Amino acid sequence: MKKEIRIGVIGAGRMGRIHTQNLLKMQEVEVKAIADPRVEDTKKWASSFEITDIRSEWRSVLDDPEIDAVVVTAPTKFHFEIIKAAATKGKHIFTEKPLSHDLESTKELLHFLEGKNVKIQVGFNRRFDHNYRKVKDLIVSDEIGEIHIIKTTTRDPDLPDIEFVKNSGGIFFDFFIHDFDYIRFIANSEVEEVYAGGSVLWDPKMQEAGDYDTAFVSLKMKSGALGIINASRKAIYGYDQRVEVFGSKGNILTSNDRETNVEVKTKDGIVIDKPLQDFQHRYIDSFLEELHDFVKCIIEDKMPSAKPKDGYEAILIAEAAKISTQFNKPVFIDNLR
Amino acid sequence: MKKEIRIGVIGAGRMGRIHTQNLLKMQEVEVKAIADPRVEDTKKWASSFEITDIRSEWRSVLDDPEIDAVVVTAPTKFHFEIIKAAATKGKHIFTEKPLSHDLESTKELLHFLEGKNVKIQVGFNRRFDHNYRKVKDLIVSDEIGEIHIIKTTTRDPDLPDIEFVKNSGGIFFDFFIHDFDYIRFIANSEVEEVYAGGSVLWDPKMQEAGDYDTAFVSLKMKSGALGIINASRKAIYGYDQRVEVFGSKGNILTSNDRETNVEVKTKDGIVIDKPLQDFQHRYIDSFLEELHDFVKCIIEDKMPSAKPKDGYEAILIAEAAKISTQFNKPVFIDNLR
Amino acid sequence: MKKEIRIGVIGAGRMGRIHTQNLLKMQEVEVKAIADPRVEDTKKWASSFEITDIRSEWRSVLDDPEIDAVVVTAPTKFHFEIIKAAATKGKHIFTEKPLSHDLESTKELLHFLEGKNVKIQVGFNRRFDHNYRKVKDLIVSDEIGEIHIIKTTTRDPDLPDIEFVKNSGGIFFDFFIHDFDYIRFIANSEVEEVYAGGSVLWDPKMQEAGDYDTAFVSLKMKSGALGIINASRKAIYGYDQRVEVFGSKGNILTSNDRETNVEVKTKDGIVIDKPLQDFQHRYIDSFLEELHDFVKCIIEDKMPSAKPKDGYEAILIAEAAKISTQFNKPVFIDNLR
Amino acid sequence: MKKEIRIGVIGAGRMGRIHTQNLLKMQEVEVKAIADPRVEDTKKWASSFEITDIRSEWRSVLDDPEIDAVVVTAPTKFHFEIIKAAATKGKHIFTEKPLSHDLESTKELLHFLEGKNVKIQVGFNRRFDHNYRKVKDLIVSDEIGEIHIIKTTTRDPDLPDIEFVKNSGGIFFDFFIHDFDYIRFIANSEVEEVYAGGSVLWDPKMQEAGDYDTAFVSLKMKSGALGIINASRKAIYGYDQRVEVFGSKGNILTSNDRETNVEVKTKDGIVIDKPLQDFQHRYIDSFLEELHDFVKCIIEDKMPSAKPKDGYEAILIAEAAKISTQFNKPVFIDNLR
Repeated sequence: MKKEIRIGVIGAGRMGRIHTQNLLKMQEVEVKAIADPRVEDTKKWASSFEITDIRSEWRSVLDDPEIDAVVVTAPTKFHFEIIKAAATKGKHIFTEKPLSHDLESTKELLHFLEGKNVKIQVGFNRRFDHNYRKVKDLIVSDEIGEIHIIKTTTRDPDLPDIEFVKNSGGIFFDFFIHDFDYIRFIANSEVEEVYAGGSVLWDPKMQEAGDYDTAFVSLKMKSGALGIINASRKAIYGYDQRVEVFGSKGNILTSNDRETNVEVKTKDGIVIDKPLQDFQHRYIDSFLEELHDFVKCIIEDKMPSAKPKDGYEAILIAEAAKISTQFNKPVFIDNLR
Repeated sequence: MKKEIRIGVIGAGRMGRIHTQNLLKMQEVEVKAIADPRVEDTKKWASSFEITDIRSEWRSVLDDPEIDAVVVTAPTKFHFEIIKAAATKGKHIFTEKPLSHDLESTKELLHFLEGKNVKIQVGFNRRFDHNYRKVKDLIVSDEIGEIHIIKTTTRDPDLPDIEFVKNSGGIFFDFFIHDFDYIRFIANSEVEEVYAGGSVLWDPKMQEAGDYDTAFVSLKMKSGALGIINASRKAIYGYDQRVEVFGSKGNILTSNDRETNVEVKTKDGIVIDKPLQDFQHRYIDSFLEELHDFVKCIIEDKMPSAKPKDGYEAILIAEAAKISTQFNKPVFIDNLR
Repeated sequence: MKKEIRIGVIGAGRMGRIHTQNLLKMQEVEVKAIADPRVEDTKKWASSFEITDIRSEWRSVLDDPEIDAVVVTAPTKFHFEIIKAAATKGKHIFTEKPLSHDLESTKELLHFLEGKNVKIQVGFNRRFDHNYRKVKDLIVSDEIGEIHIIKTTTRDPDLPDIEFVKNSGGIFFDFFIHDFDYIRFIANSEVEEVYAGGSVLWDPKMQEAGDYDTAFVSLKMKSGALGIINASRKAIYGYDQRVEVFGSKGNILTSNDRETNVEVKTKDGIVIDKPLQDFQHRYIDSFLEELHDFVKCIIEDKMPSAKPKDGYEAILIAEAAKISTQFNKPVFIDNLR
Repeated sequence: MKKEIRIGVIGAGRMGRIHTQNLLKMQEVEVKAIADPRVEDTKKWASSFEITDIRSEWRSVLDDPEIDAVVVTAPTKFHFEIIKAAATKGKHIFTEKPLSHDLESTKELLHFLEGKNVKIQVGFNRRFDHNYRKVKDLIVSDEIGEIHIIKTTTRDPDLPDIEFVKNSGGIFFDFFIHDFDYIRFIANSEVEEVYAGGSVLWDPKMQEAGDYDTAFVSLKMKSGALGIINASRKAIYGYDQRVEVFGSKGNILTSNDRETNVEVKTKDGIVIDKPLQDFQHRYIDSFLEELHDFVKCIIEDKMPSAKPKDGYEAILIAEAAKISTQFNKPVFIDNLR
């Protein structure tokens, strides 16, 4: 069977491999090539999937006329250059978030991409998760009326490596970015003002790295709705990802996915499973769904859900949150545009 | 304020005291007298509620022309005699279950009571419990259509004293009796056939007492619906009382009441409260509700919900279950009438 | 039986009546008198409880040498005067929150009460609620380690009368006050800084009254812990009262109490009961518990849990929240002392 | 990469296709051939997975020396012949349940297979389901002590075609068979005695077909434990699959898997998702797990979990249940051996 779409993967790290394996599940897709400077390692891993075209240079993937689209999972600092080049070569682009490493380059990229005739999707996978997507669907079908309050909780199972933190852009860029996008996605309104605060409660090294491990962000939406996000880089009980939306006609609340629905009653209480322990398990379906949606957008010539503009807006909010914590004052988003 | 109803309590044991305290909460009721052979003990206890008329003889309560109604919480073996005498004297009667101590005397009592112009209510308190009553309400309002399967679970927090077991009439009379009544209450159909089985898994003394500590009963209703009851005289995690009703339009499931709605996530799992630990806490409201309903039935001249006939039918099913385990065969209820 | 404590109730409105009925349940307490300018109304209501001493003047209650303690449920604007007079007369005082109507008078009252040899308890009933108290107990027993994040949700079933709003001191004084106290109660740390924001999403009249119907407050605690409160004066599904506490060893989450534990599965989904619909039902036990604790504190000569200082601190936070919304900036609590 | 195991699939109906797609996910497996008399249909379907060797005759698969193992998903009536032939040819066998179409042929097959040096696994997939397997794990690790009561609930989303029912062997063979196996799997004891009953409540055609649509089975285990199964061929709210195990140290309860963990509160109540709607979605993982386990058993030369003996025992219980309903009496399993 002739595959409809040939894709090159740029970056074969953790996310690159997750995306590659998901691409292999799609009958309409051929993974034509993978680019990664760690060629030997990548070859070894890829051989078990019968992918043999492994290249050290990402540019060579863009030069390949047989490749229709690229999945960009290289480190964030390369996003700017890769995405520009890919768009210039007419390749469709799926890129991991964030769109670029800082506000300025993101803004420049956004302008550059205007009018380019390629599909570009940012990896805001929560939009494709069964729980988070159902929340959106319920809002769209007006189950809870006008939105008044949105609350999200985001907690990782464990602290990242401090080197990662230093290069992450900080907790608002690296961690809250999904919440910023998701709140925009469901709110039917843009963010007007941001107030944020953080603490270092887990590891003093965070402070040395100029970052926080525990933080909150308050959002005032243009509609008057309020957004409240809380996050911790570590939760002893696993990965904690929840959203609550309060509206004029009701309230939506999600709870975490768990391994099983088994409940044990003993003399000590009733025990149920902890949340799924890491993002790979928790969001496994959403990673497949978002990529599949990207492929469908190419085939059916549709606009992707999470566009470069969405990537830019999320970074704007992150920048506002960062400034808010630095100067301990609320920040108007429009002042940063 | 003049009290509308004057009540005498016959038997000041555990249930007698619970009922007395509930009567004291009703503005329309005066607890006129308590009869119990343990006069001193009862006086001491009653004095704190300012009840001073304590008598050793239950007959003297029935002879008191100021008393309108009696609450019968004497040992089961006296029920027959007390209820007959009370009805003869024209006193309204609230009696703890079972109506009488065996099938023969119950049948005789039922016939005796026919046409007596007094209100008689049997203490099937589950009919008045918030969970069990809501199940009934949902069925009445046709939320789940025709009833196909009824399942109840009844487990006590701990084994009763073996002396109690010897005088209890056995697990089907003492323990399943509430399930038998409740299934009749909600089924819209009478029981046709009974099959039951039991094991001794907790304490060999149960076997010496000719009883079981673990048992099930299967019921075939005249409508074709199936009833399934399981019970254990001990559950390490507390009092376990649940019902499930499956119908053509849906399924109703209850879970146990718990002390709090607090959930704790730790590295070991998610822990919630155990069920309430004993019947006094679990059914505290239902004991008040059933008595209040009795008082209202007297005042408003209405028939109580749980009538002598209901007491008789529950005992019939218990007798069938007992015979079924003895002879290891299904028993038709109508053969026992 | 000689009652140990004789209490006078000042103010026979909604809360006055709830407290009176709870006092009547305590064997150690006699409700000696009730003061309310609506004498006839109060007499009528009180007669059914056999309370006959109804007075129009609260001062006469304080002058009564037989009265040991007062329950102050008069309108907030009279708290200052009544509490000062009661303390002067040596009466123990249970007062509804808030301690006084504004920050200045509260501060003055606090200083006045210093060294007065009477028990004074503020009606922060959540401290005595089964769910909220268990959260405290779990924290005290170190189930979740050091506290990092506290989140509370407070939503009323329906908008109050606009006249009430105008006299309420605003949403932070009237509505968030319980959250402020509760967060202090469990946090093991004092509030350092407050940022708050509000919207009018339900009724434009709120804006005319200078208030909000939807609001959030962010707290930074001295320990570095973060507090996040969200509130709405109306929730279509009933009374919504929840708390979540995230700590180094785990997370505590409460859900709302519901009328029953019945679940109905139909073709449309699984339906369970809504939360209890109003504070009278939701907090019925806590009102009894807090008063009983007050009585025990008097009898056993112990300090109450919620002291005048706690009343003052909660009002300080409310004042900070009010200023924060007015000037749209974070406010340091210590600047207001 | 050289595949370690080459498998032939016999029968390309619904289950044959599910199993084939799961085999394709295993790197150690090659699907070498598929046999089905509907050759054209099967070719068309298989081509999208690049399987081209489609044969009309199952015997030719057994004759293929390159094939190591077969997956038997042909109609039940052919199981006997296919399994015998496959074992004779030295092919490892994964067979859908039931092992054979009646008790006699199953018994004969069991004896025939004794000492045959091939791995044989029966498709009791519940043993591999995340919920049901965790229940087993908890029992093995002695979380709930000695087992006293096992309850299972099995309800299909909709009635099967009446032609299917006529050829199914009846509800106890077709429907309860998984429950019978699962209870043996977790009980640490064999079934001693069976009592069963059934009703036709959904469709009179069931009665014409000599079958029931609603039924229960009571089991007495040799250990004294009690087993209680209830089943309905239709549940308006979807696929309902639950188990409860009560032991001396606690109770295990499973609830159904649902599409999302989203809860919506409105004025009408709190609504959560219905159970997953059919066995293909509900058991998707278990089908992969059981086949993967079969492949591992071959590679690592281990005995499969669900052996022919287990297939036979489940059918014995089904036969006992069928006889019990026919003659309305309890049946001792050992009398049927």
